[in-house]
Amino acid sequence: MSLSKNQLKLITSLRKKKYRIATNLFIVEGIKVVNEFLNSTFELEQLFCVDATEYINYKNKTIIPQSDLKKISNLITPNNVLAIFKIPTANFIEKEGLVLALDEINDPGNLGTIIRLCDWFGIDQLICSKDTVDCYNAKVVQASMGSLTRVSIFYTDLKVYLKSTNKPTYASLMNGDNLYKTVLPTNAVLVMGNEANGISKPVLELLENAVSIPRFGNLQQTESLNVATATAILLSEFKRGN
Amino acid sequence: MSLSKNQLKLITSLRKKKYRIATNLFIVEGIKVVNEFLNSTFELEQLFCVDATEYINYKNKTIIPQSDLKKISNLITPNNVLAIFKIPTANFIEKEGLVLALDEINDPGNLGTIIRLCDWFGIDQLICSKDTVDCYNAKVVQASMGSLTRVSIFYTDLKVYLKSTNKPTYASLMNGDNLYKTVLPTNAVLVMGNEANGISKPVLELLENAVSIPRFGNLQQTESLNVATATAILLSEFKRGN
Repeated sequence: MSLSKNQLKLITSLRKKKYRIATNLFIVEGIKVVNEFLNSTFELEQLFCVDATEYINYKNKTIIPQSDLKKISNLITPNNVLAIFKIPTANFIEKEGLVLALDEINDPGNLGTIIRLCDWFGIDQLICSKDTVDCYNAKVVQASMGSLTRVSIFYTDLKVYLKSTNKPTYASLMNGDNLYKTVLPTNAVLVMGNEANGISKPVLELLENAVSIPRFGNLQQTESLNVATATAILLSEFKRGN
Repeated sequence: MSLSKNQLKLITSLRKKKYRIATNLFIVEGIKVVNEFLNSTFELEQLFCVDATEYINYKNKTIIPQSDLKKISNLITPNNVLAIFKIPTANFIEKEGLVLALDEINDPGNLGTIIRLCDWFGIDQLICSKDTVDCYNAKVVQASMGSLTRVSIFYTDLKVYLKSTNKPTYASLMNGDNLYKTVLPTNAVLVMGNEANGISKPVLELLENAVSIPRFGNLQQTESLNVATATAILLSEFKRGN
């Protein structure tokens, strides 16, 4: 078999957010990550592979030559398989525990890393502002290494969510309280802001507390930590217990 | 003026490590990062800019058209300036405090992020194994956002260093002691390992202690944290005090 024109067209179109929304489908690549999605609650739509040995139980598959895989792959070294999965419906029901909320994170690598961090720290609900990069973007899917199968992600108006929640709310800021000297509750909302501009003003106005990671180095330097590394440190502090 | 053939040849060659070593020169790009290097102890070799307003005090400059800058730039959006600086001689003298040591970090983005973290946490000495990616690689320079001007980086045989140091040594591992329950000294060496394989065996054998970031999420998952986010959490723990 080989790739049909329509299949090629579908895969190419799914690189764009508007087609993912229109079709409710997204792409996963590589043996390891595809396996994580196959072993999750995500529903497989179609699978394309060069070697089908691992996929004998899957019916919606097309065996394709390596040259076709190369054509449709976004990876530098395409790894045997590319699969199309259905985007699940995300229903947010507030639970006890830490909720992470992102206000306009733009970089797919940052969102992927943050999803992986949520997975590590057992935070299974991630709320994103509507202008945060799409979590079904190919780069996010690959950077999150299958963590997308374990972390539920909700895109919503952060202001509406923050007004509705009963949890205490925390902003990650440059000039907040010393993170290490603040008693952090296990049931809370932590908000991280945009890479360049931080948390937007209308969202910030709704947040009750603000924390900062103290700087130990050169105090004149204006550069902040990257949002993904800052999130790593903040989640660790919320979770470590005191 | 415009770019000479020899200048173009030099800049292109400096994308490769062997030419950086042969010439002792490296490239910095963009107004903000170039300014940090100009205001540091790094010695400028040559500067190429489209608009020279900011650089009137610098003699070794060439004003070039935007089209030339585009030709020599590695950035998606070239930003007015590209400069060549001299690689300083790095002399390691052991000081009191935390030393971070990297064992074969391959990804330039990870090394850049780690250098930025060292800067934030006031760790001004970073030791890298000889097979760690070159810190004067263009991607590392850009990812570290000028932090290279404040963190001294030494490439050496980690085994030789570890045998010589009197500081207690810590490995970052998947199965070490619970990081949050370990009393961490302020004077220590922390070793982070390769992205795929962790710390190499000969290095690991020389380390006295091992710590791990506890996992709160799905315990069956085998994926580890990215080395840069793990470093963020570990440095924060070493620095926060208890």
